[in-house]
Amino acid sequence: MRKNIVIIGGGTGTFTLLSGLKKYPANLSVIVSTADDGGSTGRLRRELGVMPTGDIRQCLLGLSDTNQEIKDLFAYRFEQGPLKGHVAGNIIIAALEKLTGNIQLAIERLSKVLKVKGSIYPATLKPTTLSAILENGKVIRGEHNIDEPKVNLKPASARAGRDGFKIKNLKLEPSLPANPKAIGAILSADVIVFGPGDLYTSILPNILPTGMAEAVKKSKAKKVLVANIMTKFGQTDGFKASDFVKVSEKYLGGKIGAVLENNKRPSSDILKKYSTEKAKFVEADLKSGQGLKVISENLISDEVVKKASGDKLKRSWLRHDSDKLAKLIWKLLN
Amino acid sequence: MRKNIVIIGGGTGTFTLLSGLKKYPANLSVIVSTADDGGSTGRLRRELGVMPTGDIRQCLLGLSDTNQEIKDLFAYRFEQGPLKGHVAGNIIIAALEKLTGNIQLAIERLSKVLKVKGSIYPATLKPTTLSAILENGKVIRGEHNIDEPKVNLKPASARAGRDGFKIKNLKLEPSLPANPKAIGAILSADVIVFGPGDLYTSILPNILPTGMAEAVKKSKAKKVLVANIMTKFGQTDGFKASDFVKVSEKYLGGKIGAVLENNKRPSSDILKKYSTEKAKFVEADLKSGQGLKVISENLISDEVVKKASGDKLKRSWLRHDSDKLAKLIWKLLN
Repeated sequence: MRKNIVIIGGGTGTFTLLSGLKKYPANLSVIVSTADDGGSTGRLRRELGVMPTGDIRQCLLGLSDTNQEIKDLFAYRFEQGPLKGHVAGNIIIAALEKLTGNIQLAIERLSKVLKVKGSIYPATLKPTTLSAILENGKVIRGEHNIDEPKVNLKPASARAGRDGFKIKNLKLEPSLPANPKAIGAILSADVIVFGPGDLYTSILPNILPTGMAEAVKKSKAKKVLVANIMTKFGQTDGFKASDFVKVSEKYLGGKIGAVLENNKRPSSDILKKYSTEKAKFVEADLKSGQGLKVISENLISDEVVKKASGDKLKRSWLRHDSDKLAKLIWKLLN
Repeated sequence: MRKNIVIIGGGTGTFTLLSGLKKYPANLSVIVSTADDGGSTGRLRRELGVMPTGDIRQCLLGLSDTNQEIKDLFAYRFEQGPLKGHVAGNIIIAALEKLTGNIQLAIERLSKVLKVKGSIYPATLKPTTLSAILENGKVIRGEHNIDEPKVNLKPASARAGRDGFKIKNLKLEPSLPANPKAIGAILSADVIVFGPGDLYTSILPNILPTGMAEAVKKSKAKKVLVANIMTKFGQTDGFKASDFVKVSEKYLGGKIGAVLENNKRPSSDILKKYSTEKAKFVEADLKSGQGLKVISENLISDEVVKKASGDKLKRSWLRHDSDKLAKLIWKLLN
């Protein structure tokens, strides 16, 4: 029988993982956050009242088996005029949600057009807003404010006030029930993969909807975490691989069964680039034991990442190697 | 051998005709104007420097054999926010032109996705601007200013100055060569159909590119004109069916071989609606003879036309009956 793989994430990290995993004979389901409010996605959400589209778009593309020409169109980012920064695929998803009044139906229709191998489930059926409570009690409201503190927190004193204070807790406003289809996928999963992706803005928001953490705990699936390659300023400063496990287990209220950690330090050139964003290498400090299986390998892709010129969001320069990740997850399953 | 039918037009009239003609075993080619600059199309053209998309979108949809769900998405018009008035299909065509740098390639790729039965050729390979020279010497620049004089000509005195003065001549700036593929289609056509559509803003602009009228004259195809049901204020005021023939022959520098004229006067309710836009019924005043074949029938569709709420352009309430038109054209061919 085909195995059921559930990926919890969204964003470019998930796109990478899906591109690798879709080559295996498994049923793939992806759960994506509905708290995204930055960039093209944020504008469409505010202007049209639609669900966040960006992660859905990336997952559709990651799972798509259509020709490259259509994928390129779906991923095209406008570079001028009032549409600057918008991605054609985001506009298409938004149009289809407006037309059908139902994001899940919109995803299913586009999945047919794009020959998608797998299912994509928004974590909730309505959009919601993410807030981070810092150790000093300060609350940062809005996913993009948490994601890009340097750009969005003004005045400078606000940034200074945040810098140094870690995120103590996350919450969704409104607090929404989990999408029942996402719950269903989790309960019938053989493996649940968390990440790769920004921990506090792409991965953990998926755990927050009512019923989601409980379902993960209840599920007999193996729980696998893919630790990030680099820390992210304002989110995971100073994190080692073990911190990713600790924080994830806190939000899950349960144990992670296996971790994929990257043990290859990037070149000093790349590390220098990241240092301008106060991001550092995540040390591979885990050891197997006490129910945790640790797979420590060079997980970095050799491909160079290019950024679209209309793209205002920060994107990482390094990516996980999609084939290696997929192979390791497949091995864990079999 | 399959017959080659070339339709010269664009807009909703052409969409109607194509929907009917695509049921017949013929090779369909449509030539659309590249001078459109109103509405969603005009905004995308100005903001992105792309070719006018609206007529291309209507022709793609008219010739498409894909399922209704995808057609609905392509035709979806946004109703709020900065995207208000934009049609999803227009944005998709624009994105694909930006991505490929080639409108003809963009049309071909979308034709595959939408299972289009036929070819769509922009009249020129670059956008151009239409000007109308009135009888009083005044020049009105821009297709949408000619198309919707009441909305766009300010102050009121300018409108008053225009009202009463007919269009004496049309020109394109810049004057561009015709798309060679459009010329090729015309030269190998068995029948060329002009209209239905706005005479001065949808039909005749296709004849103006260098080489187009010459190709029509040279072509051995039967030349068929579909006269409009109603006059259009500022364009065809006071026109009878014979005036449509006269003006078309003037721009073609050659003869029309057959005319389809509607001889059914619409209900007084509908005529009252049109009178608010200073539009009147086009009298069927033609008789066969001197090389002209006249087909005089009730050509009005029974279907009621609905308008999208985000649509700022005027649309006609009456449509030609697509199946009747197609059948009559098919009969002329065989």
